[in-house]
Amino acid sequence: MENGFSLSLTTLFSHLKTISSPSKIKHDIVDFAINIKSVAVHDPRRIAHSLKVALAITLVSITYFLEPFYNIFSDAGIWAIITVAMVFEYTVGATLSKGLNRAFATLLAGALGLGADSFASLFGQTVKPIILGFFVFLIVALATFSRFIPNIKKRYDYGMSIFMLTFILVSVSGSRVDSIIKLAHQRLTAIVFGGVIGILISLCVLPVWAGEGLHKLIVKNLEELAKFLEGFGGVYYRISNGDKLFFDSYKSVLNSKATDEQSLANSAWWEIGHGKFQFRHPWTKYLEIGDCTRQCAYHIEALNGYLEEKYAPSEFQETVKEPCMKMSSEVGKALKELGSSMKLMICPSSSYIHIKNCKIAIEELNTTLKVSMVADRCDVLEAIPVIAATSILVEIIACVETMSKAIEELSKQAHFQEPKCVTLSEQTEKPHYVDHGFALGGKYKETIIVTVL
Amino acid sequence: MENGFSLSLTTLFSHLKTISSPSKIKHDIVDFAINIKSVAVHDPRRIAHSLKVALAITLVSITYFLEPFYNIFSDAGIWAIITVAMVFEYTVGATLSKGLNRAFATLLAGALGLGADSFASLFGQTVKPIILGFFVFLIVALATFSRFIPNIKKRYDYGMSIFMLTFILVSVSGSRVDSIIKLAHQRLTAIVFGGVIGILISLCVLPVWAGEGLHKLIVKNLEELAKFLEGFGGVYYRISNGDKLFFDSYKSVLNSKATDEQSLANSAWWEIGHGKFQFRHPWTKYLEIGDCTRQCAYHIEALNGYLEEKYAPSEFQETVKEPCMKMSSEVGKALKELGSSMKLMICPSSSYIHIKNCKIAIEELNTTLKVSMVADRCDVLEAIPVIAATSILVEIIACVETMSKAIEELSKQAHFQEPKCVTLSEQTEKPHYVDHGFALGGKYKETIIVTVL
Repeated sequence: MENGFSLSLTTLFSHLKTISSPSKIKHDIVDFAINIKSVAVHDPRRIAHSLKVALAITLVSITYFLEPFYNIFSDAGIWAIITVAMVFEYTVGATLSKGLNRAFATLLAGALGLGADSFASLFGQTVKPIILGFFVFLIVALATFSRFIPNIKKRYDYGMSIFMLTFILVSVSGSRVDSIIKLAHQRLTAIVFGGVIGILISLCVLPVWAGEGLHKLIVKNLEELAKFLEGFGGVYYRISNGDKLFFDSYKSVLNSKATDEQSLANSAWWEIGHGKFQFRHPWTKYLEIGDCTRQCAYHIEALNGYLEEKYAPSEFQETVKEPCMKMSSEVGKALKELGSSMKLMICPSSSYIHIKNCKIAIEELNTTLKVSMVADRCDVLEAIPVIAATSILVEIIACVETMSKAIEELSKQAHFQEPKCVTLSEQTEKPHYVDHGFALGGKYKETIIVTVL
Repeated sequence: MENGFSLSLTTLFSHLKTISSPSKIKHDIVDFAINIKSVAVHDPRRIAHSLKVALAITLVSITYFLEPFYNIFSDAGIWAIITVAMVFEYTVGATLSKGLNRAFATLLAGALGLGADSFASLFGQTVKPIILGFFVFLIVALATFSRFIPNIKKRYDYGMSIFMLTFILVSVSGSRVDSIIKLAHQRLTAIVFGGVIGILISLCVLPVWAGEGLHKLIVKNLEELAKFLEGFGGVYYRISNGDKLFFDSYKSVLNSKATDEQSLANSAWWEIGHGKFQFRHPWTKYLEIGDCTRQCAYHIEALNGYLEEKYAPSEFQETVKEPCMKMSSEVGKALKELGSSMKLMICPSSSYIHIKNCKIAIEELNTTLKVSMVADRCDVLEAIPVIAATSILVEIIACVETMSKAIEELSKQAHFQEPKCVTLSEQTEKPHYVDHGFALGGKYKETIIVTVL
């Protein structure tokens, strides 16, 4: 143990030594400044948010400086300040969630605390602290445990911690303060005042909606994946060169975090209707779609491994060029369609056609493979990576089909607009845009779907 | 807008209707009870944690009930209670992180607040509130913005929010309280008292270490993956049937969340040395290994797609049976070795041999494929899924090799014990357990590595 301790001391000293060299300090400061700038540039709304919080807190602090307000709240005014500081979050939904949690938890726990206090008073002044202590122990143990239950953790975690805290404060203060009812009333008024100011400023001054953020994030991810897949065929056959933008496109999806989406969806649950989104928009469906996009990005990561070679396409690769190019471009188009239909909140119309084309291309690929591999001249070492890459493409197509089904369900649940469609051949008939059964058969009519935005 | 409002009202009413039917209520209650039970059974330490928090808070509440304590803290005693309630987290590391953050932030902000108060006093009573208001606005805006900076968000987020709050409270109370120095002193003592009680109970009564949790989680994930891969060959060739346990093994890794590991690693950073882990154990390396395990699980998910068919192995599949079985069992063994070397904290010794065997098996596979595919009788439709599955196996092997390198680096950084090795051929020579370059060539000596625990 002593050895371990002296060892960690040595490590600590050598660590301090590295920290304190002047060039290192300068380097660290420059790094930090760049870091700060990138935080602001990446999302300028963060600066607006900082100013909003400062505004809300300064406004509430006035309760302490101005006599008329101070006469209402007295010293409880600091609870208005604490409330704003604790409740004000980046998005409207998160602020509403914390504000409502805090208000209801305070109300409930306050009432319960007053009840516990009067009950304990029945037993006389000596026994009272013991009974109150027992209540505190019980409520804290139960509230702490309840925070492990997933459904409570998801929506009411903050409420539970405030419930616990308020109950303790009310029942414990009861033994010291004479007019506990007056104190409770002042404090509750102050908390509601702080909460209302926080929520109003969050809602009215440049609001940042969690729901809108989630929607835009998912649409962006769909577009990034579409960009890669549309370009993949060209890069695979060295027709075009993949630039940095091309290779980075799917990486942002790969690095997108399921938990970011989860917390946005949790916050969005609390938001009132805004913009194109109604109250109770099916936000959980977005999480499903988000998982699909990440799954798809993982497949693309594997596919990317077959792009790294700098050689010209092999002979075998050339034989499957047509179906391969078609698969990648059609699956890219399907994704693009799905992305834009989500963006504009209209039912997906032509994506099914692209998925259908993908399936036709898969058939073509199988036929071509069969023909070219039974021929004697096929080089197996050339064939294996091509077969592996095309298998991944097939998996990606399956993944996009799942995604398309999820988006279709979303479009029904969220009452997306139906697109106005005109088919050249049958202008009067409704187009088959929900027909995923490929009933059109092998040959399909030229269908132009005009989407009126 | 009105339409949207009435629509959401209708939805709300229909929602309330579903909620209120008696059978639904009964069902919900039963569900909730099952939920609670599973939370407790899944990790009984959660019950212990709830009791620990209750104990700590009840202890601190005594400061309010007992006269000697009340004389020290006066009304500031509630800050001791608030501190315990806010600081006490599930793991020791998280509690230390919040406790230290709170203590230093309070100290700093308190000093700064007092300074601001005396500075503002210089300008007379009428101008003072304006200057203080300006300071509050400035500090809140800066502190709120700083919480967006990743490095601050990661370690000092709670500290920043407490810094902001304390500065406001001190500078605002200054205008109302006569003896602000006395108040600040009492409050700081109370906060330190609460923090110390919280940290001591978290540390001494059945401590839950974040570091140990992270270590066990990663080891468990490695073992789950090893279990699947070792069994894969047998199930693929219908020699054995995959039971539910087999199929579930990799799913738990697939569902494991990067953010859970991230938050454990963040907490572990604050922890003092415990058990086999020293202060400043390289916890970030665990995150790297964790990402590799998830990557590997994604490949396995794709591989699993080739197991679902209920048919006997195809003729083509049989031709590559030997290398395929070898690849899956050897990569499984390598993972098992890596897992147990991490578990026991000894340098990985024989995993490199298994990875080497995998590479030999890949060579064999390529040869077999070449031979069997140039023969005329090869059925392409049979060959494609087999080639695709084996390509995935090859990717998994590459993934495990990356993982093995990360674990080797970890073993160096964390000073894992070197295993005592005895090679049958050269008992005196050091074994080549760090030799990943396959310098032994095609034929390698029978090397038995005896690991003395």
